[in-house]
Amino acid sequence: MTHPDAIRLFAKTLRNLEQWMDKAAAHARAKSFEVDVLAQARLAPDQFSFIRQVQSACDQAKYAAAYLGGKTAPSHPDTEQTFEELRQRIRKCLEFVESVPEADFAGAEERKVSPPWLQGKWLRGDDYLAQVAIPNFFFHATTAYAILRHNGVDLGKMDFIGSVPIRDA
Amino acid sequence: MTHPDAIRLFAKTLRNLEQWMDKAAAHARAKSFEVDVLAQARLAPDQFSFIRQVQSACDQAKYAAAYLGGKTAPSHPDTEQTFEELRQRIRKCLEFVESVPEADFAGAEERKVSPPWLQGKWLRGDDYLAQVAIPNFFFHATTAYAILRHNGVDLGKMDFIGSVPIRDA
Repeated sequence: MTHPDAIRLFAKTLRNLEQWMDKAAAHARAKSFEVDVLAQARLAPDQFSFIRQVQSACDQAKYAAAYLGGKTAPSHPDTEQTFEELRQRIRKCLEFVESVPEADFAGAEERKVSPPWLQGKWLRGDDYLAQVAIPNFFFHATTAYAILRHNGVDLGKMDFIGSVPIRDA
Repeated sequence: MTHPDAIRLFAKTLRNLEQWMDKAAAHARAKSFEVDVLAQARLAPDQFSFIRQVQSACDQAKYAAAYLGGKTAPSHPDTEQTFEELRQRIRKCLEFVESVPEADFAGAEERKVSPPWLQGKWLRGDDYLAQVAIPNFFFHATTAYAILRHNGVDLGKMDFIGSVPIRDA
């Protein structure tokens, strides 16, 4: 998988996530509760809420695009409280992620990636993508999905995966 | 990310999963319940149980190695009922996945992948990896993790990610 392929996969999954939120909104209407109740939902008391799962998925996509594309990541403060604000966060994220030209990922495999949490140490770009960005992104996206699923939202695996480029003979 | 990198990532995550199961066993002992109760746990009544999440994660890894490495996948019937049997399933899966020589993934990007569920249609190898194998694998691995987390097992994100190859200056 090329680096632009990975970024496209993150973007596609964030767009899928917006559709899970549409289904959550429909569920809330059908059950006559405020959808933003689900923004605070979590699967264990010491786990991130739905809001932080979405923020974290966005950040994994944003930082992968920035670090591997040689850009400075824009600041997206974690201030969201509502589904509507989370939708805006996703769109801001997509706007940045999709602004990085494909050509700028050339050589990303060997780029030194040194996020602040590594305190001066670093990862090769290919290791960052495979062992940090991909598993973390899908960890948070799947947990966001699981929180909605656990709360009765009508979701199935195809909502998670979205469309795939199937070819005829 | 190269195809062998993806296979290594799946294998590493399956080994991490065995460690989540160790923590589940410790939790069960501390609370004096049979760990195999968790084998049937799920986050929603119409969702796969922990057992099927683990079986599905294994299958995603197995089929990715088979389809992209040009091998026939061995049959691993979904007969597991206990944690001990799931550990054996993981080991069988790892044994196969790690038996495919790296060189056999050469050209996998353009290989036609035509699993039975595509009914004669196909996906390019790169699309299969990026849009089927990776999201499905992490979907099932994360849901397995979330089921344990929701049931009080002492897990954190580092258990999910495992070790990463951090380098010094």
